[in-house]
Amino acid sequence: MNTVEQQDAIVVDCLQYSKPTRERFLEWKNGDVGCVHVTLSVWETARETLSVIGRWNDLFAENSDLVALARTTADIHEIVRSGRTAVIFGFQNTTAFDDDIRLVKVFSDLGVRIAQLTYNTQNSIAAGCWEDDDSGLSTHVGRQFVREFNEVGMLIDLSHCSEKTSLQTIDFSSDPVAVTHANPLEFVGRDVELNRRPKSSEVLRALAARGGVVGLSPYVRMLKNGLKTTEREFVEMISWTVDLVGVDHVAIGTDFYTGYGVEAVKWWRMGRWGRESPVPIDEQAPVVEWPAWFQSPTAFPSLIVAMQQAGFSRTELDKILGGNWLRLFAEVFDGE
Amino acid sequence: MNTVEQQDAIVVDCLQYSKPTRERFLEWKNGDVGCVHVTLSVWETARETLSVIGRWNDLFAENSDLVALARTTADIHEIVRSGRTAVIFGFQNTTAFDDDIRLVKVFSDLGVRIAQLTYNTQNSIAAGCWEDDDSGLSTHVGRQFVREFNEVGMLIDLSHCSEKTSLQTIDFSSDPVAVTHANPLEFVGRDVELNRRPKSSEVLRALAARGGVVGLSPYVRMLKNGLKTTEREFVEMISWTVDLVGVDHVAIGTDFYTGYGVEAVKWWRMGRWGRESPVPIDEQAPVVEWPAWFQSPTAFPSLIVAMQQAGFSRTELDKILGGNWLRLFAEVFDGE
Repeated sequence: MNTVEQQDAIVVDCLQYSKPTRERFLEWKNGDVGCVHVTLSVWETARETLSVIGRWNDLFAENSDLVALARTTADIHEIVRSGRTAVIFGFQNTTAFDDDIRLVKVFSDLGVRIAQLTYNTQNSIAAGCWEDDDSGLSTHVGRQFVREFNEVGMLIDLSHCSEKTSLQTIDFSSDPVAVTHANPLEFVGRDVELNRRPKSSEVLRALAARGGVVGLSPYVRMLKNGLKTTEREFVEMISWTVDLVGVDHVAIGTDFYTGYGVEAVKWWRMGRWGRESPVPIDEQAPVVEWPAWFQSPTAFPSLIVAMQQAGFSRTELDKILGGNWLRLFAEVFDGE
Repeated sequence: MNTVEQQDAIVVDCLQYSKPTRERFLEWKNGDVGCVHVTLSVWETARETLSVIGRWNDLFAENSDLVALARTTADIHEIVRSGRTAVIFGFQNTTAFDDDIRLVKVFSDLGVRIAQLTYNTQNSIAAGCWEDDDSGLSTHVGRQFVREFNEVGMLIDLSHCSEKTSLQTIDFSSDPVAVTHANPLEFVGRDVELNRRPKSSEVLRALAARGGVVGLSPYVRMLKNGLKTTEREFVEMISWTVDLVGVDHVAIGTDFYTGYGVEAVKWWRMGRWGRESPVPIDEQAPVVEWPAWFQSPTAFPSLIVAMQQAGFSRTELDKILGGNWLRLFAEVFDGE
């Protein structure tokens, strides 16, 4: 994004979940990342999520030279024009709504624009990708919440949801939906971890057919060759997915995170609901490792070069790197 | 229960959900009801449930001549000996645990002895009887909570749960479990309302085989002939169920409630999760109607006479009217 011709293109990373600090915001600047979807809640309740928003408000005040909250695509463009990174608030679960349908609008009014229906396990709304018995979108609570998300203009995220939840929600939602951070199962070639997050080709085709977008991720547990996966192989996955669903429906959601200890891993794996983690936790191992070519979001310019070398056109790059998310955001957030 | 020989028998009604007032406690006294399982939470959160317990504490203080809280079967016997009614605290949902497994013991320490896994709809733990797609007991959250209930000695209730949740929980739980208030589907002959609460013979047989108990109810939407059902027909349902699963596994859970307006019905039907009730609500109709022969728990002595006339022996009556619940309570609450 260094040339004059490219100045209007915006890199959008449609999920990062690092512990937010100025260091991370500087990485966004150095990586020329225009917009990042961040996670406020996985298992946090409504009350706890209000405090998370409070901490973000402080961060915005303390780092107003680097970041600002975006509620609309117009906000994103304005923040990027000012040389800063636009932050989109999202939830990776519906826990923060406390099973209160009216909290969808309340949190929307606080800036939350994206909500994943569930995080791995089943809740009142939907089945997650860890359930052996996949009930999909629930008959009453799930369907009423989807209607509410559509009404309020909150983008539905299916990344950690089950196969049936994904297919039923794509079908039931009047707005297109997102898989903000999951790779194609058929390409990665295996059910990479218990979380079973990679998405079937059936889900990805249905998502695209209804106007949705999938964000691909360098998260090692969803890569074909794990930590050894090369940047070139990652770009091959992008090409493969574009061939599957079309260039208007493939984008980036790195799932990048750093800054946490093992307590955070326990929180993600089992919230407060578990005494044992369904995925064994190695207390001595690093919380997460990233491929050599994606040690942080500062790696975006290198990834863009790799995509150019692989033959992606300027138009294709603009769509995949940010344009597809911006088109989907406009449709859902702004009702365009 | 008027003769000297019957003085040791205790009538246990293993679910009532009236708005608690002195008038209700007097009905218990007049009906010679020794023990009543009451509901503290359906959709109430942990915080809200603490306030419900606070109100019950006031009620116990203000009506100490009529009622007291029982935590063990020894408490029940002592309270009944003092001429009062023992109250057992229970939940008709797991909402009050706020998806925090450690709140099971916290609420147990506050006296909660019975917990239904879900109320009609799906939650993180289990599928309810209103779901079209019945996923049963959930793979991780559900199974970990059942182990916790077993560990803490909290009796699991399946009344509003789905078929698969019932079968899987009966099988997975190390303690016997309860259906505190639901009638046999095969006898009532139809899926009486959307809530689909009546239990299949397969569930009832499995429940009994593992030492569980089912409480039969004069709630009109679960009766063969609705409001026209006679006391004699209700006694026939008791006999039929005893023939199905044996006299050690059939008891009473009236589901009796009164004192509420239409707002309470809306709360039960859709908590805060719905904008529309899955069951249409007639704002003009009475909240609930009870058969002529069961207008309140003062009708228990008449029901006992009807059961005697139908040929139940003294031993059978004692078991069905309270002994079976007391045996199950001893096994689960007291670990006997």
